Amino acid sequence: MIRAGVIGASGLAGGELIRLVAQHPALEPAFLGGAASVGMRMGELHPGLRIHPGLTVRHVTADIADRLDVVFLATPAPVSARCAALLADRVVVIDLSGAFRIRARRLHDRWYPEVERPEDLVDRFVYGVPELVGDQLREAALISLPGCYATAITLGLAPLVLGMGLRADRVLVDAKGGSSGGGLRLRAAGLHPLRSGAITPYAPNGHRHAAEVTDFLRRTRPGAVGSLTMSAYGVPTVRGLLASLYVFTDRAVDRRELERAYLRFYRGHPFVRARRHTETRIPVPDPQAVLGSNFCDVSAFVDEDGGHLVVLAALDNLVKGAAGQAVQAANRRFGLPEETGLTMQPVMPA
Amino acid sequence: MIRAGVIGASGLAGGELIRLVAQHPALEPAFLGGAASVGMRMGELHPGLRIHPGLTVRHVTADIADRLDVVFLATPAPVSARCAALLADRVVVIDLSGAFRIRARRLHDRWYPEVERPEDLVDRFVYGVPELVGDQLREAALISLPGCYATAITLGLAPLVLGMGLRADRVLVDAKGGSSGGGLRLRAAGLHPLRSGAITPYAPNGHRHAAEVTDFLRRTRPGAVGSLTMSAYGVPTVRGLLASLYVFTDRAVDRRELERAYLRFYRGHPFVRARRHTETRIPVPDPQAVLGSNFCDVSAFVDEDGGHLVVLAALDNLVKGAAGQAVQAANRRFGLPEETGLTMQPVMPA
Amino acid sequence: MIRAGVIGASGLAGGELIRLVAQHPALEPAFLGGAASVGMRMGELHPGLRIHPGLTVRHVTADIADRLDVVFLATPAPVSARCAALLADRVVVIDLSGAFRIRARRLHDRWYPEVERPEDLVDRFVYGVPELVGDQLREAALISLPGCYATAITLGLAPLVLGMGLRADRVLVDAKGGSSGGGLRLRAAGLHPLRSGAITPYAPNGHRHAAEVTDFLRRTRPGAVGSLTMSAYGVPTVRGLLASLYVFTDRAVDRRELERAYLRFYRGHPFVRARRHTETRIPVPDPQAVLGSNFCDVSAFVDEDGGHLVVLAALDNLVKGAAGQAVQAANRRFGLPEETGLTMQPVMPA
Amino acid sequence: MIRAGVIGASGLAGGELIRLVAQHPALEPAFLGGAASVGMRMGELHPGLRIHPGLTVRHVTADIADRLDVVFLATPAPVSARCAALLADRVVVIDLSGAFRIRARRLHDRWYPEVERPEDLVDRFVYGVPELVGDQLREAALISLPGCYATAITLGLAPLVLGMGLRADRVLVDAKGGSSGGGLRLRAAGLHPLRSGAITPYAPNGHRHAAEVTDFLRRTRPGAVGSLTMSAYGVPTVRGLLASLYVFTDRAVDRRELERAYLRFYRGHPFVRARRHTETRIPVPDPQAVLGSNFCDVSAFVDEDGGHLVVLAALDNLVKGAAGQAVQAANRRFGLPEETGLTMQPVMPA
Repeated sequence: MIRAGVIGASGLAGGELIRLVAQHPALEPAFLGGAASVGMRMGELHPGLRIHPGLTVRHVTADIADRLDVVFLATPAPVSARCAALLADRVVVIDLSGAFRIRARRLHDRWYPEVERPEDLVDRFVYGVPELVGDQLREAALISLPGCYATAITLGLAPLVLGMGLRADRVLVDAKGGSSGGGLRLRAAGLHPLRSGAITPYAPNGHRHAAEVTDFLRRTRPGAVGSLTMSAYGVPTVRGLLASLYVFTDRAVDRRELERAYLRFYRGHPFVRARRHTETRIPVPDPQAVLGSNFCDVSAFVDEDGGHLVVLAALDNLVKGAAGQAVQAANRRFGLPEETGLTMQPVMPA
Repeated sequence: MIRAGVIGASGLAGGELIRLVAQHPALEPAFLGGAASVGMRMGELHPGLRIHPGLTVRHVTADIADRLDVVFLATPAPVSARCAALLADRVVVIDLSGAFRIRARRLHDRWYPEVERPEDLVDRFVYGVPELVGDQLREAALISLPGCYATAITLGLAPLVLGMGLRADRVLVDAKGGSSGGGLRLRAAGLHPLRSGAITPYAPNGHRHAAEVTDFLRRTRPGAVGSLTMSAYGVPTVRGLLASLYVFTDRAVDRRELERAYLRFYRGHPFVRARRHTETRIPVPDPQAVLGSNFCDVSAFVDEDGGHLVVLAALDNLVKGAAGQAVQAANRRFGLPEETGLTMQPVMPA
Repeated sequence: MIRAGVIGASGLAGGELIRLVAQHPALEPAFLGGAASVGMRMGELHPGLRIHPGLTVRHVTADIADRLDVVFLATPAPVSARCAALLADRVVVIDLSGAFRIRARRLHDRWYPEVERPEDLVDRFVYGVPELVGDQLREAALISLPGCYATAITLGLAPLVLGMGLRADRVLVDAKGGSSGGGLRLRAAGLHPLRSGAITPYAPNGHRHAAEVTDFLRRTRPGAVGSLTMSAYGVPTVRGLLASLYVFTDRAVDRRELERAYLRFYRGHPFVRARRHTETRIPVPDPQAVLGSNFCDVSAFVDEDGGHLVVLAALDNLVKGAAGQAVQAANRRFGLPEETGLTMQPVMPA
Repeated sequence: MIRAGVIGASGLAGGELIRLVAQHPALEPAFLGGAASVGMRMGELHPGLRIHPGLTVRHVTADIADRLDVVFLATPAPVSARCAALLADRVVVIDLSGAFRIRARRLHDRWYPEVERPEDLVDRFVYGVPELVGDQLREAALISLPGCYATAITLGLAPLVLGMGLRADRVLVDAKGGSSGGGLRLRAAGLHPLRSGAITPYAPNGHRHAAEVTDFLRRTRPGAVGSLTMSAYGVPTVRGLLASLYVFTDRAVDRRELERAYLRFYRGHPFVRARRHTETRIPVPDPQAVLGSNFCDVSAFVDEDGGHLVVLAALDNLVKGAAGQAVQAANRRFGLPEETGLTMQPVMPA
């Protein structure tokens, strides 16, 4: 068994990690770390879970590395930066925060001014989209997982810019997400009465997930992307997000070429489903059709009138956008089949 | 008292019209028209209303014009086309459907192939955004109200293209709306279990409301708009919509100029509120902050990275996007103060 | 104009009071009071409202009474107790909290141990259900409004125990309410992710609203009620509550007698609607059919198998359960027609 | 592998069965049956599922029994009655409908007047609550699963009347459930706009699930239950139900005795969790804490004021209330460990 630690065990991503680790045939939940929740038992934190009830949350110290094979950091970026410094080279570190996602220093400092990170580690972190960097993950000691929106955007763009070799001159992202993306931080705007009927433009002109995608794609293929901007909106679901990408490319593409390219690009990748919009009784991609699963559904359209492409990508932000992708990366890292412990189908309707 | 008829009384827009007409000090609900619901009393149709309970739904015939001053058509476009033919020149007609919104014939036929309309009436219909064509409404015998999304888009763009004199070379609209926009038509995708957790791309590459805005703006100021495309998404609210406009203009604009232009353009227009994004405890515009009212909230942003503008417009699709705007137009038409019967403040939270 | 002050202006009931006072033809919002929100403008607090934007929140001092005719206390019970002591006999006080609802001292101390109140004022407060104590309100200097659930329970029981003269030997209340009942207090269980899918038994065996109803009904008619117990549940709406009353009476009643008694009891009371369960296209009473209005819908059923009655009462907790009832009581107090400023019809669907 | 057929494959329970059967290590989905959906592929029907995409829905004929080991009937009761007649003694039949739940003929005819069933089969059906009739399931050829509410009520009452030997003189059930309980039947009241804000008393005085519980408990222990009545309410969740049981027993019970009795009764039953109300950060039982899982959470309270007990039971109506319990019964029937294929933990928050 691979012994796993979950730091940030009291949060939503932490709870989801515990759920997935506990259901995993090869991972063993061996440590829960936290700060304010130290001393609490799992059952007190996560009302649904009735697994490993004896495990309690503890302080994170360097010596936990001796008893663990992998540590998942489901912590705010500044905490992740400190934990990574503590644990690097002693245990495999998989960070779900934004601390190490943006490699370019200036870009990082612009979007994460509050995060001081050990600069010597930055280049060693693999930006872990398993579908795109699977081989690098096999050897990685440090893995930085993309943000929830960034995962959707990257998986939406990859067939165009990495598969078809197009250049995305301009990408406008309009991202719509549920309330679990904001975690359990206490604030008036997060209370049910003020969130339940909201279509709320919480980041109308700029979001840091755009920066990490740009950074990653340009690193992967220089010139792949011109400008990539983003607006983010909260809508009244709990889980799930839909990223709408309006993409202007350097050459025109027709519908059939587009659909074939997406199908081909994700052949052999079980968690990304290239779907036809009307193939089922609700239009897809729709995050309700991936809820609770590690799937990311993508579709691409040609907008004839505007001369651009519309790419949609939907995923469950707590699974493929966080804990599920973390386990998927761990599977790659430890040489397990990619789907191990992640075969759950969507819970729909919910 | 101005005697008003509501045709399509069993639908959601019809119910909202009845609510507003009944609360209006100068309008009197004098006729309810329908087809399948003929013979039903108001209370059977609209569970909330306890007004004029004796009124029952009747068939629409030409002679209703004799007893009415104004008829609101809250009917599907083909029905509106037939009713308009029947009633034109006998009574003021205010149509909430899409039958007469697009004047250009080719464009109309592309987006409304199912609607045959009396061509001689088309040019006589005023496209009734009260804030923009107030004077024309005073004389109008036939008024065609913009669609709910079209209202938001038009009010969002007008300060740029009509106020500041900019040309919008390219506009991408990403529109997010609640389930009441789909009315009470029975279909699996409209049932609560399949709609409650949905972020559903029901019109990812093209929507007819974009066509009517283009048609209107080009007619109002030739060259005002280059391409205007639209994607529409259903989110799990009931009322309310938010239109996000990504606008590329022919010259750069800075933030202060932009904010001042919006404030100035809507000065004296009580129903459009130019708002600062962070002026209150939730980010605005957010349709929850206009629910049940006739307000449309707008904000505009400069996206420095993309070199474009982001314009947001939020409204209650059943009020400012339908019944409220209809009453507002009627107020203009009959020489009443614009706010008559429409002074209700938003019901928030709901 | 009657000059009104609203204390607790930053909360949900406070916001609703401002909305209703501002729409009222005879009330003038002349003072906003608060503590943590002192100095804030109305628009900062209540995103929907665009009325009296200049009004800012101030500290409450005794001399505000000089400039006001009525003060609404939308404050926590301990604050209401202090404000009442400060303002009594200087201005009409209408308290929306629980500070003065229970007259019997022992019962008060059991359910409100945290509330020390000026005992000399207790007996002078009128427990203000306008439908039942209308005459007393005309002279009242101090009015204590029933809780939201208590309003529904009292209006549901009154036709039985005050109208038909039955004794309710045993009443079991199962109350279901939306999240706005919990106000804007910050706590994890109130966040959207943990409240959005909840059917949550927050008070399974006892709730203080039951105590105030018992206290009031026994005072009004000794022996009217035997035991009255209550369980309360949170469900994922924002506004609205439904109280289900399972009532065992001292004699059997049949369906027609029951329906007639409810109709008769509320004849002439415009805000309570005795309704037949299937009279419209959704089953009623349902709080969605009263949203935003001052209506309380009631229905009563005979359960033949159990030999008991089922009484249902639905209302909007922020209107008829709080701010609307407060204005209704003020109307009574100042000799205005009861419906003044409260004629808004339900906003449905929302 | 055990070859399983799912009849009623296009419905919500059918879809959930397919999900669970496909995830089950020993069950193989070998046949999909339906009527209106004949010819459709799984992916067209259930947008989330990407399993066995080649399987299409077919007509049900007697000879399907030759190729199957077990048939799940997720069909309306009249269809189940016909299918059972067709397939009995040829294959194990597990019926999720109400066709065979009530054994007493008069009671059946009262609550299911539309269901004509083969009377010779009635007594052979085992009413399959696995926790209570586990041994009978091992030999059963015909299994009738309790309704979703009936499961919760039975599991809530069993520790009292079967474990502690109390007599429940009177039980009042107030049941609150999400919209998926109503399936995908098209009707106005089921549309999102009319269901999203509803607390709707759809069965205020009587529900057939009460009848099956009474029938079963009296059969299991004569005199266990006096009167058992039920009111049912729809609330705006999709999955999940909470049954509140107000129970009057023949002798008083104190809190500690009660809690111990529930813990003891369900020791060794992995799917029923006897929980303390405040053991976690939201009050439980709450159906959100069992979503997507086969758990039923129960708690019991003493209401000192009323002299009765309050018992709460929460479950996911599509899992423990339908498809999950069906698989659990199949596990019992085929000698598999009870948890096989049902180890998924709750997906929370969702």
